[in-house]
Amino acid sequence: MIVGVIGGGQLARMLIPPAIALGVELRVLAEQEGMSARLASTNIGDYRDERVVLDFARGVDVVTFDHEHVPQAVLRALVAESIAVRPGPEALQFAQDKLLMRQRLSELGSPTPEWAAVSDKRELEQFINSNGGVAVVKTVRGGYDGKGVRVVRSSSQVEDWFDALDEDGHGGVLLAEEFVDFKRELAQSIARRPSGETATWPVVESIQKDGVCAEVIAPAPNQVPRLAEVASEIATSIAEGLGVTGVLAVEMFETTDERILVNELAMRPHNSGHWSIEGSTTSQFEQHLRAVLDLPLGPTGTRSPWTVMVNVFGGATSRPLEQSYRAVLQEFPFAKLHNYGKPPRPGRKVGHVTVCGDDLDDVTFDARAAAAALSS
Amino acid sequence: MIVGVIGGGQLARMLIPPAIALGVELRVLAEQEGMSARLASTNIGDYRDERVVLDFARGVDVVTFDHEHVPQAVLRALVAESIAVRPGPEALQFAQDKLLMRQRLSELGSPTPEWAAVSDKRELEQFINSNGGVAVVKTVRGGYDGKGVRVVRSSSQVEDWFDALDEDGHGGVLLAEEFVDFKRELAQSIARRPSGETATWPVVESIQKDGVCAEVIAPAPNQVPRLAEVASEIATSIAEGLGVTGVLAVEMFETTDERILVNELAMRPHNSGHWSIEGSTTSQFEQHLRAVLDLPLGPTGTRSPWTVMVNVFGGATSRPLEQSYRAVLQEFPFAKLHNYGKPPRPGRKVGHVTVCGDDLDDVTFDARAAAAALSS
Repeated sequence: MIVGVIGGGQLARMLIPPAIALGVELRVLAEQEGMSARLASTNIGDYRDERVVLDFARGVDVVTFDHEHVPQAVLRALVAESIAVRPGPEALQFAQDKLLMRQRLSELGSPTPEWAAVSDKRELEQFINSNGGVAVVKTVRGGYDGKGVRVVRSSSQVEDWFDALDEDGHGGVLLAEEFVDFKRELAQSIARRPSGETATWPVVESIQKDGVCAEVIAPAPNQVPRLAEVASEIATSIAEGLGVTGVLAVEMFETTDERILVNELAMRPHNSGHWSIEGSTTSQFEQHLRAVLDLPLGPTGTRSPWTVMVNVFGGATSRPLEQSYRAVLQEFPFAKLHNYGKPPRPGRKVGHVTVCGDDLDDVTFDARAAAAALSS
Repeated sequence: MIVGVIGGGQLARMLIPPAIALGVELRVLAEQEGMSARLASTNIGDYRDERVVLDFARGVDVVTFDHEHVPQAVLRALVAESIAVRPGPEALQFAQDKLLMRQRLSELGSPTPEWAAVSDKRELEQFINSNGGVAVVKTVRGGYDGKGVRVVRSSSQVEDWFDALDEDGHGGVLLAEEFVDFKRELAQSIARRPSGETATWPVVESIQKDGVCAEVIAPAPNQVPRLAEVASEIATSIAEGLGVTGVLAVEMFETTDERILVNELAMRPHNSGHWSIEGSTTSQFEQHLRAVLDLPLGPTGTRSPWTVMVNVFGGATSRPLEQSYRAVLQEFPFAKLHNYGKPPRPGRKVGHVTVCGDDLDDVTFDARAAAAALSS
């Protein structure tokens, strides 16, 4: 069983432990030497280069991903050679193009914010006016971690994006979305095998800072009746409707009037699922391997009443995390540390801390304090 | 943080996942290419060759072990170069020489079976006569997994061993031990840091078949009062008395008259501790890394009421384990599979299965059935 992963980041890195347990040979096509998943890197090259990717993929049983940026043409070249690609290009296009995603989710009847494709400032002004004087504007491609997203009250606030589209000359559009008055953000992860089996984890609360995931609480506390069921049904309908294989994370808003709206999709293990390494019987990384290999999926229940995951960002000093280990492990014995083995440039996600336990306040305090101590 | 492991077997392999989480660089000196820990193998060579081991060790922060067979001369050459070796040669000699171990444990006041060093058939007959007509005879060096151990009623049953000692000409002896009427076997694992901190896991029951560990139940069921405390105290006294750093597993007999006697020692992660990967907050593999790096030790409590680990042995057909995955994962969803990535020669330990849960009978049934299905 050989699984090829395109991309050498921390998601590929965290696939290594379950691959070792299952006896799966993991091969990683990394963008460069010394990346987070370097232990399993067998190839170095540009994932946009069809020849590079084909060379890599010919030796593996199935190709999967650390990120969603592999161009459709490259993906389709793999499929044309009968190489198993999971998720496949048909599914991945919806993670690569936010407009396609919105269109397809609307077709599937998934609850989404109001949205429109806007091709110029006039259309955007119209959308803003009919949506309470504010809109979230997104570039259709290439955004992540808050990049390519702006909250605007006037079309002039994205004039540079319209100018770039004009220069591009491909008749591109921007995506305008309703500014949702949300109570909090949730994330629902699901795994789906090619043979159709699905398994959802408990819905979690995801706390963002500056558009980047900072903390995850599993399961989401203070759930209104049927929240878990609704979130799971939405994710299942999307996984099936889009033909996703592997892990799919659905980021959602819980609105102040208790509706659930789908925000973003990620077709791979996702930051909102890292808690599952310690917190669930089957981690998202083991499950992703099982799903892309079309093996039976594992149970997704929790192993503790509460699990809190807090991201560790590079601090102002770029000090290696290891220098804080002695103090952190002494002071927070229940903290499980995950160090991505990346240079801790300021603001960069370089690790995470997970704490499981019975008391949510205690668990949250320890996870936050341990993560802060690691990055300070 | 670079940890060098001498030996490329499954214990080195199972150190890789916690090394990835902690951001520890693991380097393995393997006996040959393609061994169980191949993913982390950086050097291939003979661990009895001082030059090979020194070359390997000079680049790491601390040297530790997959097995206890590195000769004292080689270990002392590392120490002479101020390389951190954990456990060190002073401690390891007691794992390498069963006579030294018995002498030292007696000095420490650890409860052991009656024992004597016997240099010829006459001395062995004397021991047999004063111990109820039966003795367990062991070679002082080189035994493991039941090899180098015989239960005898007459000295002639180990005549070949005495002959070999005579030919060797070094005045060697055999170790004769009381044949203990035991109710069951237990194992107590402990970790100890150079700075002195220790942490014991719950005592477990270890079920042997043909002298080889077959099953482990954590914690040991049906404990008489104070069993856990006594087992933990014995292991702590040994770890401190022998100056062990890293993980130490103490194999024990629980006698029919409810005494605890120390049987064998292993100064490394041990088969009796594999349950801790899923079953404890800190696995023996993570703890071993923390201990040899002199980092604070993690909590060793259980994460489920019961954890059962069953070894998987190569079957009669040498069929790869992966061929059974679909059926096993379907039928035993709570079984966590560990495949050591070794050719499944008949009788060889090639993996293990762990199941955690609330009901000991259910957990035991699933773990046994899943392991049997994997190896059949």
